[in-house]
Amino acid sequence: MAMDADLKDRIKQAVADGFDEQIAFTQKLVQNPSLRGHEHSIQDLLFRELQGRGYAMDRFKMDHAAIAAHPGGSKISEDHSDAPIVVGIHRPRSETGRSLILQSHLDVVPEGLHDMWSDPPFSGKIEGDWMYGRGAGDMKAGAAANLFALDALRRIGLQPAATVYVQSVVEEESTGNGALQTFLQGYTADAVFIPEPEEEMLVRANLGVLWFEIQVRGVPVHVREMGEGANAIDAAYRIIGAVREVEEEWNADKAGRPHFENEAHPINLNIGKIEGGDWASSVPSWCNVDCRIGIYPGVTAEKAAAEITERVRVFAEADSFLANNPPKVVFNGFYAEGYVLEEGGEAEAVLGRAHEAAIGAPMKSFMTAGYLDTRVYALYNDIPALCYGPKSRNIHGIDECVSLDSVRKITQTMALFIAEWCGTEALDG
Amino acid sequence: MAMDADLKDRIKQAVADGFDEQIAFTQKLVQNPSLRGHEHSIQDLLFRELQGRGYAMDRFKMDHAAIAAHPGGSKISEDHSDAPIVVGIHRPRSETGRSLILQSHLDVVPEGLHDMWSDPPFSGKIEGDWMYGRGAGDMKAGAAANLFALDALRRIGLQPAATVYVQSVVEEESTGNGALQTFLQGYTADAVFIPEPEEEMLVRANLGVLWFEIQVRGVPVHVREMGEGANAIDAAYRIIGAVREVEEEWNADKAGRPHFENEAHPINLNIGKIEGGDWASSVPSWCNVDCRIGIYPGVTAEKAAAEITERVRVFAEADSFLANNPPKVVFNGFYAEGYVLEEGGEAEAVLGRAHEAAIGAPMKSFMTAGYLDTRVYALYNDIPALCYGPKSRNIHGIDECVSLDSVRKITQTMALFIAEWCGTEALDG
Repeated sequence: MAMDADLKDRIKQAVADGFDEQIAFTQKLVQNPSLRGHEHSIQDLLFRELQGRGYAMDRFKMDHAAIAAHPGGSKISEDHSDAPIVVGIHRPRSETGRSLILQSHLDVVPEGLHDMWSDPPFSGKIEGDWMYGRGAGDMKAGAAANLFALDALRRIGLQPAATVYVQSVVEEESTGNGALQTFLQGYTADAVFIPEPEEEMLVRANLGVLWFEIQVRGVPVHVREMGEGANAIDAAYRIIGAVREVEEEWNADKAGRPHFENEAHPINLNIGKIEGGDWASSVPSWCNVDCRIGIYPGVTAEKAAAEITERVRVFAEADSFLANNPPKVVFNGFYAEGYVLEEGGEAEAVLGRAHEAAIGAPMKSFMTAGYLDTRVYALYNDIPALCYGPKSRNIHGIDECVSLDSVRKITQTMALFIAEWCGTEALDG
Repeated sequence: MAMDADLKDRIKQAVADGFDEQIAFTQKLVQNPSLRGHEHSIQDLLFRELQGRGYAMDRFKMDHAAIAAHPGGSKISEDHSDAPIVVGIHRPRSETGRSLILQSHLDVVPEGLHDMWSDPPFSGKIEGDWMYGRGAGDMKAGAAANLFALDALRRIGLQPAATVYVQSVVEEESTGNGALQTFLQGYTADAVFIPEPEEEMLVRANLGVLWFEIQVRGVPVHVREMGEGANAIDAAYRIIGAVREVEEEWNADKAGRPHFENEAHPINLNIGKIEGGDWASSVPSWCNVDCRIGIYPGVTAEKAAAEITERVRVFAEADSFLANNPPKVVFNGFYAEGYVLEEGGEAEAVLGRAHEAAIGAPMKSFMTAGYLDTRVYALYNDIPALCYGPKSRNIHGIDECVSLDSVRKITQTMALFIAEWCGTEALDG
């Protein structure tokens, strides 16, 4: 059921009218250095913002035991965040429409070396159409858009005619356990919408992700006797070679996988972090390598993890040093399956109309190779899971930034989507 | 001029008589965690011990500018120790013998992972013939032997009939600048003796050593766009490959080098420490690799460093990622030439007689591939530089230990050497 053209225009104008305020709030979010474990103050900020708008509030911790017992639970490490999950709840007077979850995460990835950035990583600086800062695109612009899409409806005297949960989670960048906890807490709806920076496109398919650390230990010696010892850093690199073989085999296995077979290299192994040894003149006795690899939808984390573990074991057995010093493979983060959004659903149709009304062109969809929280809702809530959001540059990189023009447009798309998906009623009070 | 047999026996007995005390003092040194930069309290302990025995005392800092200006000066980094150098001075009533420097270093290398040690790394535990602990062999047993060899002569009413400098330095494990500072401070003598753990053998030739850090920087990206970015950890490993080629060329160049051509692999490149990246899911934008490589005597540090720097530059130019992100090679520690002790010197002859009297077999000599402070005295003081000391196990490794039986024997060798080299006179007062 399409909306009338006049309502569409009023909604778009309402987003535009609130956009200066939206930019200011987005900037406030970007200026908060909400790195893993340090999302407490930003989650409190979201709590106050939602409460101030009159939403019913829920706030809860992650249940480590319940997460560990769930097949979608990623591994808890000592770096895991204990910042709370925040949910703001809109309940309509008359529950006539379809309910909705608007989700975002406020944790950001490490900023990297500051001296590589043009401005400090949490500057929130605006230059032309772009707002800069770690998390500007991924995904503080989207987090703000969740609030301001609903605010736009209020601005013209409307509210959703269905329950809407605004969820603000953490741990999206390392485990996805924040999203899983919303499921374990019992939250669900008729659809979920997550405004990740997806270049104004809809995510059609998404890889799962595994994190693991390869831990090598070995007997160190004085360099004058190098032949007698073995170098744990060199040994770690040999193991990386073995895991790269797994990566290439998984890439070769793309044939027959509809959303992946046309990608040149769908599965990426990233050697993300390495630490080993104590100083130049001692043969290193230890080396830890942190890796991330993608897995196809339909392949469980457990199966993929077992394959990596076994490959490292077999490789080590045939290596003279590693055979005596068996390395460990420790899964210490993402342990997450991928998902596919089947074509032709009603939620996608509504989003397509909203997109066309806001952007003026048909919506495209695509496969993305990074982890998305959408997988929790697609796999476990079993609801239509829409991931769609603004244009950005260099997410996870240096000088990350988000296009403000695009943020305005996708916020218009979102407000239009909410109005049609949930229906509208006159604002309370 | 050989000593009479009776004096030899009295000296050996005097060492044996003081050996319980020597063990207790050695243990006290081993129990002090005198890691780089943390040698202040142990140098004060040595100062008090020397002063308590009535030696004239000198204590001084390193002169960074003078070290930087000297061709034997290693590179000063922010990790450089500022602990003082301590010298205790014995002056005889009648300067009839040959003067001597007894040198030792009290800095130790990092202990490595504690959970790999059978006991805590600074336990000083004695089990059977072995005293355990980081630095037990390298070279706290030798540092104690310097004092107790002189004490043994006192025990039988004798003292050296020549000036003896007992030098306690730091920075031996990373730069050798402590030893160089004693030269810059004007100390010299007719010979130097350094009781490093050399398996009761004399060091005939010793490689020089260079330390350097390879620093890679590059543009990071989200793993979903890995093809666009480049992985600094991977790039660092490619550079290591280029430096390994230098290592193999230098090994191939052993032909015609008398003390090295019969060694299977005289030049060792050690990849001692690596750090790169921030976490698993970001393509790493930085990686630092700390390396150590040996150089032949007669090859200056400057020439060898230039060769490594140039090789890395040329390699990077041909690498698509590194060409746009030129790596740096920073020399940050040892920048030291090697040395050869020419055969047939008088100091060696005296030591050979002392060794045979203490150990009962002819003294052997050998080439060692690790850095030794002896190079300062051989190259710059231009005096006979004797490096000879006890049997040890696992120096720089796990469960480092020193043989107490061997420590007693080499202390006897040392006391006999001092008595013949310096001559003796009746003790003062």
